Amino acid sequence: MQMYDLIARTRHGEALCDADIRSIVEGFTAGEIPEYMMAAWLMAVCCNGLTAQETTALTLAMRDSGDCLDLSAIGGVTVDKHSTGGIGDKTTLVIAPLVAACGGYVPKMSGRGLGFTGGTIDKLESIPGFSTSLAPDRFLTQVRSIGCSVIAQSGDLAPADKKMYALRNLTATVDSIPLICSSIMSKKLALGADCILLDVKYGTGAFMKTPQEAAELARAMTQVGQLAGKRCRALVTDMNAPLGTCVGNALEVEEAIRILRGESDLPLTELCLTLAAHMLSLSDHGTPEECRSKAGRVLTSGEALERFSRMIAAQGGDAGVTEHPERLPRAQYTLDVRAASDGFLQSVRSEEIGLACLGLGAGRTADHAGIDPGAGVILRRFVGDAVRTGDVLCTVCGSTQTLCETAAVRVQNAVRIGEEQPEAVPLVSGIIG
Amino acid sequence: MQMYDLIARTRHGEALCDADIRSIVEGFTAGEIPEYMMAAWLMAVCCNGLTAQETTALTLAMRDSGDCLDLSAIGGVTVDKHSTGGIGDKTTLVIAPLVAACGGYVPKMSGRGLGFTGGTIDKLESIPGFSTSLAPDRFLTQVRSIGCSVIAQSGDLAPADKKMYALRNLTATVDSIPLICSSIMSKKLALGADCILLDVKYGTGAFMKTPQEAAELARAMTQVGQLAGKRCRALVTDMNAPLGTCVGNALEVEEAIRILRGESDLPLTELCLTLAAHMLSLSDHGTPEECRSKAGRVLTSGEALERFSRMIAAQGGDAGVTEHPERLPRAQYTLDVRAASDGFLQSVRSEEIGLACLGLGAGRTADHAGIDPGAGVILRRFVGDAVRTGDVLCTVCGSTQTLCETAAVRVQNAVRIGEEQPEAVPLVSGIIG
Repeated sequence: MQMYDLIARTRHGEALCDADIRSIVEGFTAGEIPEYMMAAWLMAVCCNGLTAQETTALTLAMRDSGDCLDLSAIGGVTVDKHSTGGIGDKTTLVIAPLVAACGGYVPKMSGRGLGFTGGTIDKLESIPGFSTSLAPDRFLTQVRSIGCSVIAQSGDLAPADKKMYALRNLTATVDSIPLICSSIMSKKLALGADCILLDVKYGTGAFMKTPQEAAELARAMTQVGQLAGKRCRALVTDMNAPLGTCVGNALEVEEAIRILRGESDLPLTELCLTLAAHMLSLSDHGTPEECRSKAGRVLTSGEALERFSRMIAAQGGDAGVTEHPERLPRAQYTLDVRAASDGFLQSVRSEEIGLACLGLGAGRTADHAGIDPGAGVILRRFVGDAVRTGDVLCTVCGSTQTLCETAAVRVQNAVRIGEEQPEAVPLVSGIIG
Repeated sequence: MQMYDLIARTRHGEALCDADIRSIVEGFTAGEIPEYMMAAWLMAVCCNGLTAQETTALTLAMRDSGDCLDLSAIGGVTVDKHSTGGIGDKTTLVIAPLVAACGGYVPKMSGRGLGFTGGTIDKLESIPGFSTSLAPDRFLTQVRSIGCSVIAQSGDLAPADKKMYALRNLTATVDSIPLICSSIMSKKLALGADCILLDVKYGTGAFMKTPQEAAELARAMTQVGQLAGKRCRALVTDMNAPLGTCVGNALEVEEAIRILRGESDLPLTELCLTLAAHMLSLSDHGTPEECRSKAGRVLTSGEALERFSRMIAAQGGDAGVTEHPERLPRAQYTLDVRAASDGFLQSVRSEEIGLACLGLGAGRTADHAGIDPGAGVILRRFVGDAVRTGDVLCTVCGSTQTLCETAAVRVQNAVRIGEEQPEAVPLVSGIIG
């Protein structure tokens, strides 16, 4: 069928067959379908949606537009995790060694990406010597022997997604569940793991603003993953306040080490254990409850931290940072942000904290831009805490006094103090798939 | 506001202000807004619609993208008519002189256009010597003295529409009420008449398939016309079967002459009188009923036919055709299409008749292509008529025997005979505005 007819069908809410959807993706990637036609089709998708079958066909066609990894050399059931992105989300740093210490295989490739703070790759690169660009063979060998490796995406993964996303970003067609779903899942499927655990976030610092929207996206993604033959599950988690105490690259590595040492009792630790339990359970290590217990044990025993050291060493990094976190880069200047009144901490808007970090140089606004590994924000008090005027709420870390002052104003605006103690919101609000 | 934000607003069903809509039209016409952005916006309009206020702003911005005519030299209240297009629609040929004979002023500019059969301009050009390209001064002078003139559109009318339509035609964004409305009305408003009567057609040969859809388009167009300060009314009329007995260029002129001579008692004559009555009534000549009586009188008295002769003469044509229609071009070959069974004529699908005429060379498939003025189809029997096997239903007229044979097969397929006499459908199903 011609592209014109395919646009008309989607515009009138009629489903396309798999071959038609594949022809759209292939034609657009090859430059045969002009951008104005693709823009019209994408907008029709935004307005009318796609069926699960169509979303799956779209995802698979996008996956097949580029390289697909073969992980069979690892010789075990592999499990991947994907977070839709959050402020202070250092869970990958914790759960890769945690799951590995429990016998799982975590071959993790992460994008560098734009955003408020660096991605997982940027965080790991703040460890002196750590290399995130391993040759495929070495990557697979490391996962087989240690159980985990985290490297930067290489090769040509889902180029169709890259081209489609660029157009969506210019035509206000980004916020569509089937398009977000196919964009994420095409890359996840190309990465080749047998099991995929999705962490779909909602809140001020996330793309989805409500638990309902996040659950809808989670359902779409798990459905596509399962239709594509993967074991797939999703957790719907809260991202209204930053995750844990630190936002920034080296700062987050330091916090991950504290969690792996069993020194943190924040909800973030519980989230890491829950994510690890589901990853293990998906990949044949028992029920989620059994896996949760096992994960708790290796955290307490020090095996998880030891696995992190081995991963750092295997990737050329200074494994001593797990015992001496002070070897990580640190910002030269710090500035405390204090409570302006008595009361309870009502909210810490994670989007504002993210913007403050971006201003400090912890994230990048353009591809290939450099970042400041030491910059970031440390949260000293949390939503629900009672505070008094003058109490230190956060500490801003940056390379100059001026940068810190600007960021401190943003952080001050992110924080709200009120009279009533707010109700606690569970970090995990739903499990799908 | 940036185009990205405007697309996002329309995509989320939020109304744009007049200035924003104007910036879209001006930016796109000037080539500053890329086609992919415009395509996304047009699709968002197709899916979510526009408010009456937005549709009016869009129409006025499109009108203002090119020339606007000044008809004040005519010195009276001017009235225009627009039909959304039909098979065998020769009403303009009848009502221009009919309204003029009743004292109205009809400055009519028609497009040549593509389609099944030629446009009004092609029909008139089948009259030997008739010129449809008069200088503006001569056009206005003729309308002032005779009351009517029909010429081909010249100048740069609504270039924004031309550019938008080309993109809509490639992106499946044609069938949208606000976009159809603004496309038609931007050009009508640029033509400058004080009053506009719209003939909005529905059925197999029309763009709108049901009376409800046609009424919706009619409401949108009259609303825009009125918001733009014009006296505007719409008739919703049936286009399931061809209008009258003839489809083709010279054939339709011949039929128009028969109607103007008072020799036709078909529903088409009644439609012409109704259209004329509303045009006169809109332009200060009394109630629709009074105007209808007056129009009937000038038809019977021969004044309407005489006015047609004067118009032909004023535009350089052979006015003698009104007395000697045999001077019009005629096809060399004819072929009768006969009833294959006894019964009642159930339907004559006008779209199929149109395609048969196109095949005969009566219409054009490419801009500036030539047409055969003598080609066409003559209907001998009408929907509801009792017929017997072998009765002549239609006659096909063409320049070769082969063309006639091919067309005859199409015409045969357009005709359906059944046992029950079908219910009569009134030509005019609604008056709006």
